[in-house]
Amino acid sequence: MEKKIITISREFGSGGRSIGREVAQKLGIPFYDKELVDQIAMESGFAPQFVEEHGEHSPGKSFLSYAFAPQGVPGVMNGMSAADFLWNIQCNVILQLADKGPCVIVGRNADYILKDRPDALHAYIHADIAYRAERIVRLYGESEKSPEARLQEKDKRRRVNYQHYTGRTWGAAQNYDICLSSSKLGIETCVDILVNLASK
Amino acid sequence: MEKKIITISREFGSGGRSIGREVAQKLGIPFYDKELVDQIAMESGFAPQFVEEHGEHSPGKSFLSYAFAPQGVPGVMNGMSAADFLWNIQCNVILQLADKGPCVIVGRNADYILKDRPDALHAYIHADIAYRAERIVRLYGESEKSPEARLQEKDKRRRVNYQHYTGRTWGAAQNYDICLSSSKLGIETCVDILVNLASK
Repeated sequence: MEKKIITISREFGSGGRSIGREVAQKLGIPFYDKELVDQIAMESGFAPQFVEEHGEHSPGKSFLSYAFAPQGVPGVMNGMSAADFLWNIQCNVILQLADKGPCVIVGRNADYILKDRPDALHAYIHADIAYRAERIVRLYGESEKSPEARLQEKDKRRRVNYQHYTGRTWGAAQNYDICLSSSKLGIETCVDILVNLASK
Repeated sequence: MEKKIITISREFGSGGRSIGREVAQKLGIPFYDKELVDQIAMESGFAPQFVEEHGEHSPGKSFLSYAFAPQGVPGVMNGMSAADFLWNIQCNVILQLADKGPCVIVGRNADYILKDRPDALHAYIHADIAYRAERIVRLYGESEKSPEARLQEKDKRRRVNYQHYTGRTWGAAQNYDICLSSSKLGIETCVDILVNLASK
């Protein structure tokens, strides 16, 4: 069966987003990443920055979560934390996007949300630490923290979020149809493999 | 760089061995699996059945391990368990095989043993439970235990052995350059992807 929906989960700095964008371009189908965040934000009434920050990060019930929540939402949320409320909306948005037609969706635990769709191909992109460290400094610049510490922190937050909402282990090969090391294989090769698989 | 050495780690029943054999055939390079076991057995003096049983299974110091050990070996082993002694020989055999030239090596933690070779491509093959259960019954026949219980037991033993000797998590995508679901992608597609990668 043709794989119409491609989800890409990725380690921070691995180039997974670039790979997703290029795959979508080559297949001539929509690419959802920032666009997805915006759509979720609009539907929920949360500020885009809040969605960006909490969409793949550890679930929290902090006071700050509520501070960024849309007006009136605490009432609507029926006692759910802001993060849980956001997760429900995220699921609905991703299910709707997949129903609309072929697309590439990066991140947001879409692999899990769309795990029962036979027309979905679930990919995971990872890379070694040195490659990712060099890449995040080149793309996002230096910061006070070492690139290794930034990677570690982001990895941890994605891992905790994924585990919390899916009950699965982040980065376990069994969750995905294909996992690729971008540092070993190269971005272009990863793109080619995914485009070929999607076109089969 | 051309990838001359291909290691294939696999879940029991996933078809990883068949994939490895076909990749080796298509590339016209040696395939090591039973052959490797025999060679290890010859070098160590262990009975082939013992090597087959302990090469990828949980490390044990049972009385039975010693019962199957070659005559005179307990003295040579310098206090190592039979499993640890076997592991050392396994490492040497695999390093030597890789030095000999291009080849496909299935199992035996070869991904870890050859992790520092830049000309090695490390693949992991997995599949969903239903696919594997159907496959092991078809290939190896029925047994008293349910196929699911057989899979669970074998998975556990490989996981414990891998963790013990490599310090890594079995099936974590980060350990491999590429992980493929044979149940989702099909055996032939997995073969094609690996042959293409090795020929690049």
